[in-house]
Amino acid sequence: VNTIKKGEKTKNHIIEQSAILMNQHGFLSTPLSEIVEVTGMQKGGIYNHFKDKEELALQAFDQCCSVIQQYIENAIDLKSSVTDRILAFIEAYCTFGENPTIPGGCPIMNASIEADDGQSAKLLERAQFAMQNLIKFLMDEITNGINNKEIRSEIDPQKTATIIMATIEGGILLNKLFIDRSHITTVKDHLIDYVKNELCII
Amino acid sequence: VNTIKKGEKTKNHIIEQSAILMNQHGFLSTPLSEIVEVTGMQKGGIYNHFKDKEELALQAFDQCCSVIQQYIENAIDLKSSVTDRILAFIEAYCTFGENPTIPGGCPIMNASIEADDGQSAKLLERAQFAMQNLIKFLMDEITNGINNKEIRSEIDPQKTATIIMATIEGGILLNKLFIDRSHITTVKDHLIDYVKNELCII
Repeated sequence: VNTIKKGEKTKNHIIEQSAILMNQHGFLSTPLSEIVEVTGMQKGGIYNHFKDKEELALQAFDQCCSVIQQYIENAIDLKSSVTDRILAFIEAYCTFGENPTIPGGCPIMNASIEADDGQSAKLLERAQFAMQNLIKFLMDEITNGINNKEIRSEIDPQKTATIIMATIEGGILLNKLFIDRSHITTVKDHLIDYVKNELCII
Repeated sequence: VNTIKKGEKTKNHIIEQSAILMNQHGFLSTPLSEIVEVTGMQKGGIYNHFKDKEELALQAFDQCCSVIQQYIENAIDLKSSVTDRILAFIEAYCTFGENPTIPGGCPIMNASIEADDGQSAKLLERAQFAMQNLIKFLMDEITNGINNKEIRSEIDPQKTATIIMATIEGGILLNKLFIDRSHITTVKDHLIDYVKNELCII
């Protein structure tokens, strides 16, 4: 039992360290030598736990997503109205970059840029799945909001979810590019106004 | 004279082919072997024209930007009102992905994701400069629009330019991720409504 526990602990250590590294340097393009360095392990020790580098990249990507998901869930947890949950989601997604747990911006964006050219169909699929989940969360909230008369009935849940996610991602890109939080703050404030003024029935 | 011309022609050939390749596979992470293959040239022949791979990447990035800039300039060229120029810019930036000249999405986004971790300060600087130019174009148009009473005076040119560029970039990301034009179409239609309803007088 102790051996299994130790093995799992080592595996989790590799995943956590790789997640931090790969969200900054690339899920596919981070060299194994950097993973060796940051984990303090040998190549062979790493490959005891993952059948290849892609498998490690996929698990590191999932780890990034689950840290962010936890951060967002904490933010929306105590909000009872749909509007407050959508606003808390926007606030959280625009600010998780200030949370030093996973530096490097949005892992879905990072993975998409790397994987869209056929380098890893599996990573692209995971990135699609992660983005679908975010869009679906927003769609479901908007649909609930329409049903309980918080949100205008003429709002299209899918399109609105797409617009919110696109705007957030673009803000994260500008934040990454200019290393200056003014852009993401502008985008966040704009989205908050958009939700309050365009979606909500006062 | 002919030798200079031939040398320049060869250099341009390398830049054009590398631009197409690198916007898809990475300005920094495309292996030289792929550039050798696509240009039909030897390593030595390539390094006759560029002092290193970074220098080639920078010129390939500039080439991508100049193709897109030309595409946008053509789109806005005959528009006389500020509103029409902003709308034509949005339309063009959201659709250059359909233009097969430079596949791989927005080069500024692609370069940012690769270069933000310190891999190439020069590439990051070029990407910042390219994005600044786009934001500045929109800011100047919006300022002109306020001056000539096409655009509401309470609109903040810088913030509005940031919001438009962020939303476009996020739409390009979703288009890249889902290989499905519905997202970028949704984003484009949203921005067109935003300009018409939120920015314009009337």
